[in-house]
Amino acid sequence: MSKLTSIFLSLSLSLSLLILTSHASVQDFCVADLSLPAGPAGYSCKSAANVTVADFVFTGLRKGGNTTNIINAAVSPAFDAQFPGLNGLGLSIARLDLAPGGVVPFHTHPGASELLLVVQGTIVTGFVSSFANKVYVKKLVKGDLFVFPQGLLHFQINGGGRTAVAFASFSSANPGLQITDFALFGNDLPSVLVEKTTFLDDAQVKKLKAVLGGSG
Amino acid sequence: MSKLTSIFLSLSLSLSLLILTSHASVQDFCVADLSLPAGPAGYSCKSAANVTVADFVFTGLRKGGNTTNIINAAVSPAFDAQFPGLNGLGLSIARLDLAPGGVVPFHTHPGASELLLVVQGTIVTGFVSSFANKVYVKKLVKGDLFVFPQGLLHFQINGGGRTAVAFASFSSANPGLQITDFALFGNDLPSVLVEKTTFLDDAQVKKLKAVLGGSG
Amino acid sequence: MSKLTSIFLSLSLSLSLLILTSHASVQDFCVADLSLPAGPAGYSCKSAANVTVADFVFTGLRKGGNTTNIINAAVSPAFDAQFPGLNGLGLSIARLDLAPGGVVPFHTHPGASELLLVVQGTIVTGFVSSFANKVYVKKLVKGDLFVFPQGLLHFQINGGGRTAVAFASFSSANPGLQITDFALFGNDLPSVLVEKTTFLDDAQVKKLKAVLGGSG
Amino acid sequence: MSKLTSIFLSLSLSLSLLILTSHASVQDFCVADLSLPAGPAGYSCKSAANVTVADFVFTGLRKGGNTTNIINAAVSPAFDAQFPGLNGLGLSIARLDLAPGGVVPFHTHPGASELLLVVQGTIVTGFVSSFANKVYVKKLVKGDLFVFPQGLLHFQINGGGRTAVAFASFSSANPGLQITDFALFGNDLPSVLVEKTTFLDDAQVKKLKAVLGGSG
Amino acid sequence: MSKLTSIFLSLSLSLSLLILTSHASVQDFCVADLSLPAGPAGYSCKSAANVTVADFVFTGLRKGGNTTNIINAAVSPAFDAQFPGLNGLGLSIARLDLAPGGVVPFHTHPGASELLLVVQGTIVTGFVSSFANKVYVKKLVKGDLFVFPQGLLHFQINGGGRTAVAFASFSSANPGLQITDFALFGNDLPSVLVEKTTFLDDAQVKKLKAVLGGSG
Amino acid sequence: MSKLTSIFLSLSLSLSLLILTSHASVQDFCVADLSLPAGPAGYSCKSAANVTVADFVFTGLRKGGNTTNIINAAVSPAFDAQFPGLNGLGLSIARLDLAPGGVVPFHTHPGASELLLVVQGTIVTGFVSSFANKVYVKKLVKGDLFVFPQGLLHFQINGGGRTAVAFASFSSANPGLQITDFALFGNDLPSVLVEKTTFLDDAQVKKLKAVLGGSG
Repeated sequence: MSKLTSIFLSLSLSLSLLILTSHASVQDFCVADLSLPAGPAGYSCKSAANVTVADFVFTGLRKGGNTTNIINAAVSPAFDAQFPGLNGLGLSIARLDLAPGGVVPFHTHPGASELLLVVQGTIVTGFVSSFANKVYVKKLVKGDLFVFPQGLLHFQINGGGRTAVAFASFSSANPGLQITDFALFGNDLPSVLVEKTTFLDDAQVKKLKAVLGGSG
Repeated sequence: MSKLTSIFLSLSLSLSLLILTSHASVQDFCVADLSLPAGPAGYSCKSAANVTVADFVFTGLRKGGNTTNIINAAVSPAFDAQFPGLNGLGLSIARLDLAPGGVVPFHTHPGASELLLVVQGTIVTGFVSSFANKVYVKKLVKGDLFVFPQGLLHFQINGGGRTAVAFASFSSANPGLQITDFALFGNDLPSVLVEKTTFLDDAQVKKLKAVLGGSG
Repeated sequence: MSKLTSIFLSLSLSLSLLILTSHASVQDFCVADLSLPAGPAGYSCKSAANVTVADFVFTGLRKGGNTTNIINAAVSPAFDAQFPGLNGLGLSIARLDLAPGGVVPFHTHPGASELLLVVQGTIVTGFVSSFANKVYVKKLVKGDLFVFPQGLLHFQINGGGRTAVAFASFSSANPGLQITDFALFGNDLPSVLVEKTTFLDDAQVKKLKAVLGGSG
Repeated sequence: MSKLTSIFLSLSLSLSLLILTSHASVQDFCVADLSLPAGPAGYSCKSAANVTVADFVFTGLRKGGNTTNIINAAVSPAFDAQFPGLNGLGLSIARLDLAPGGVVPFHTHPGASELLLVVQGTIVTGFVSSFANKVYVKKLVKGDLFVFPQGLLHFQINGGGRTAVAFASFSSANPGLQITDFALFGNDLPSVLVEKTTFLDDAQVKKLKAVLGGSG
Repeated sequence: MSKLTSIFLSLSLSLSLLILTSHASVQDFCVADLSLPAGPAGYSCKSAANVTVADFVFTGLRKGGNTTNIINAAVSPAFDAQFPGLNGLGLSIARLDLAPGGVVPFHTHPGASELLLVVQGTIVTGFVSSFANKVYVKKLVKGDLFVFPQGLLHFQINGGGRTAVAFASFSSANPGLQITDFALFGNDLPSVLVEKTTFLDDAQVKKLKAVLGGSG
Repeated sequence: MSKLTSIFLSLSLSLSLLILTSHASVQDFCVADLSLPAGPAGYSCKSAANVTVADFVFTGLRKGGNTTNIINAAVSPAFDAQFPGLNGLGLSIARLDLAPGGVVPFHTHPGASELLLVVQGTIVTGFVSSFANKVYVKKLVKGDLFVFPQGLLHFQINGGGRTAVAFASFSSANPGLQITDFALFGNDLPSVLVEKTTFLDDAQVKKLKAVLGGSG
């Protein structure tokens, strides 16, 4: 063993011994153990001994979701619940596929800002500012970026004649997603309450409740 | 001068000298100087020499806003822009006045969770969870509390025959407020885009745009 | 089934499938499961399937605590340990009842700033700034607000002839509460140490230790 | 004016008046004013009146940087200094272009985790864990994601015969970038110090110092 | 110019150009510019061009403060106001010198936890937990560490016959310091209010007010 | 029982009852339970009933690690895994022992800034800024402080003829430590990849791999 080898082994040993004697390993990541209950900051960490490179890789977004529906759209998330390596790291991503005529209706992410990157086609997108109700709308092409500040209503629409694909990065491993139409009409909140709190007409509310499987 | 006096004066001096020589005062609060531009964490701090007890007191919510309108409701905020002492402290408050029949329409706070306290009358309130679209609704009486997790759609309605008053605390000095109807209809976002992104009928959109002063 | 229905069901399905296959549900709240150990960021989340509207409501502050004691005061907390829906949301509340002559002695909240709202009667309150020892004191009436920056010594006193009630909001779900007299005299810290670290006289320390059940 | 119109105008007025009287506008974003000094949380906010949709759009990454160099690689950042709309929102992005044989040498981002998305070609990437020195390496194809926990050494190499393109999202608007070779050899740190702190041979250090414009 | 040189120059150029064109430099530190007003997250950053190694070095704690007073103690802070390089980095330090018989009276740090390291002599220290009033006390020798959770009352006393020296690290660049005696007696808060809020006797309050320069 | 006693007992009771009925204790610290899995914010909290003063004290740094190796250096951490009382408090510490000629090679802490305090001897230390590659180097003597911004490469070298000792405080309870040489050469990353990503010569890489126990 060379002198240099023993230098490092000594240093390494010095670090390792203290760590070993504490019966706990120091980690610089916290891959989610989805079998345990989460807490406010995310999931419990998988034991370091069981972590492999597969925990840091996600191949589920190679293809988009099925867009052969009327809206010609699919949203495929890679949040911490799908991609455990993101746990505790404060970022995540989702894939948007918008076939011609496709639309992602008005929605919010309660827990994160979003950075949209168009990788194919063209997308018209915009968000509404909260106090002035000012709308910021833009048509984006491949390579363009658009940022949506946290929690504000925004939408995406295919802006051209071919399928558009985008990736949306989020400033949280669990940004949430609340689609306004689903929230208002896709449940059992009585129509009279929906009408009183949205100023929509009764016929409109009942029509959308019927569409979205809501009741009441 | 007693011995005890000199003890403290010495200690005090020791602390003070270092502080004075640095040409900067150590503060344990940061009252907003609204005349300077804000940053992501809030406003610049007012000079400590100019801070008075008035900066930590807000009397603007003694009375509610005017509810002699059709919705019989008023929302009066005491956020950092109204109450500079809150700057940087991570909390704020607003007063809700709901005359009989009053309603605060569906809305979100993009930057904070909310804790509602009813201090007079009864209020029916609820929020919608983002993924399951599950609705959590409750009728509250005086002294009751309801918590709305950050960024989720919620509403308040007067639940009785007399004026109701509530105070909503927020986990941010600047929680924001986005009223869905205002965001969707109170601006110049073209009707065709609103319809495409909300699935509402054209007549419904145009009716509400007219009501809310929107165009397009 | 209408075309519009299928639109939404497709979109919904696309979101749901990915989520289901990950064996973990995405949540936008984290109701405390008080049966599990807490962590630095709060309690573990109750399973979403078991969450009900009751988790977001707290009725324990409809009435104040018993003030038929000499200080004519009661402090009733609604922190995460009492109100599990607050877990991870960064805010909480407490009710203060101050009968005539009532007082909440000097205390701090180690983990939060406080926003006091008077809802009945009058309260004299104040806090002490840390370096200048400057005192900010104010007499508040119904509807007034006072903010106490994090960790600083403050007090509340009934300022009138009738019972006063206030609600204190906090910028943490677990703000803590350290009443100075309890901390100094309500335990077994030897009197000689208390005297040396507070400069109080021996008789004074022993008198308050006797009152507060301290020993040593 | 209809009754409904006046409802909203009243509510709107109630909100607006308080805000106007405070001589400060409430914002839900903070577009960077790059002409003012930054602070620890980012840049000062541009006046809301001067914010336009252009602040939320970035088109600078439509094309990659010039890869006609020997490493056949270019890194093009869209951080807050390039894309002011990101200020304070906790996320940013960069484009990587790797021509055949291209490489991004070992580097770290001192202030953020990174989520890499391959949009063209194949990339071999990996990071080194801090205590075990364990290496996690993977060959990625189009649509694949890889997450690099904050602050750890990692690299990217073109893994195929054609140009590869990837976008790296970061959990900070200003993640930083420290390329190890630049840090060690691209400055005036004396060779003797470099050798003592890296255990590299003198000839090796001097060779790389010469290459990278270092001195000493 | 070698091939390798041009590799790096190309890469460097690619990074630099984008940065330069944005008229803002990317920084990985934020040395305080004490001439500008602070904000909630700290001071504005000094221009990078003006930063020197002196900003990251502090030599003011080579010697302790003057302990030739009755308490035989001195506290010398190196917070952001004294040591501008700490700005925004979330840590700071102070030196404690305790001559024989020396004491740092009960105090709190409103904004930080503290980690005490004894470097000379022996120190008896302790803190009081907030709800149980439980006291944790220990006699420390050279090389020992003691951690005080944020905001809780604690003290330090010289535990031996010779001068003790310790360094206290804090989890904030501006932890604050509120010495209970100073807060209660070193200002113009009327004695009657002090007595009502501390349950101390009138004579005791007036004695300490006299000592500490308080009035009222 | 005196009147004053009953005052406090009443108040105490009022606080205690609510807490007890919630079957959860309010804590103002979170001592790590190392037997349970950690989460992104740290370890689960030990039951308050089992916490003792020993949890807040660490005596493991009274002596330095063994420096009778060629680098004459030892790094001894007191992070949360070694010192459970630090859990969740955002700070930790390590001891550096540098015998004559000793060196701590270039390294980073991925999760924290560092504040170095020299307590014996002299140390030459420095860090490299990320974009300008500017080096900040200084020779420190006893009592001097040096701050290293988060995630940047830095080193320490004994600057004199006798053993030097320093303590490094960190702005995290788990700052991590990545020694560049270990990361690059102490594992099975193939030499060809190391060379391609570091521009080091093959002989140099293989020499250091041999020294550090790497393979490939």
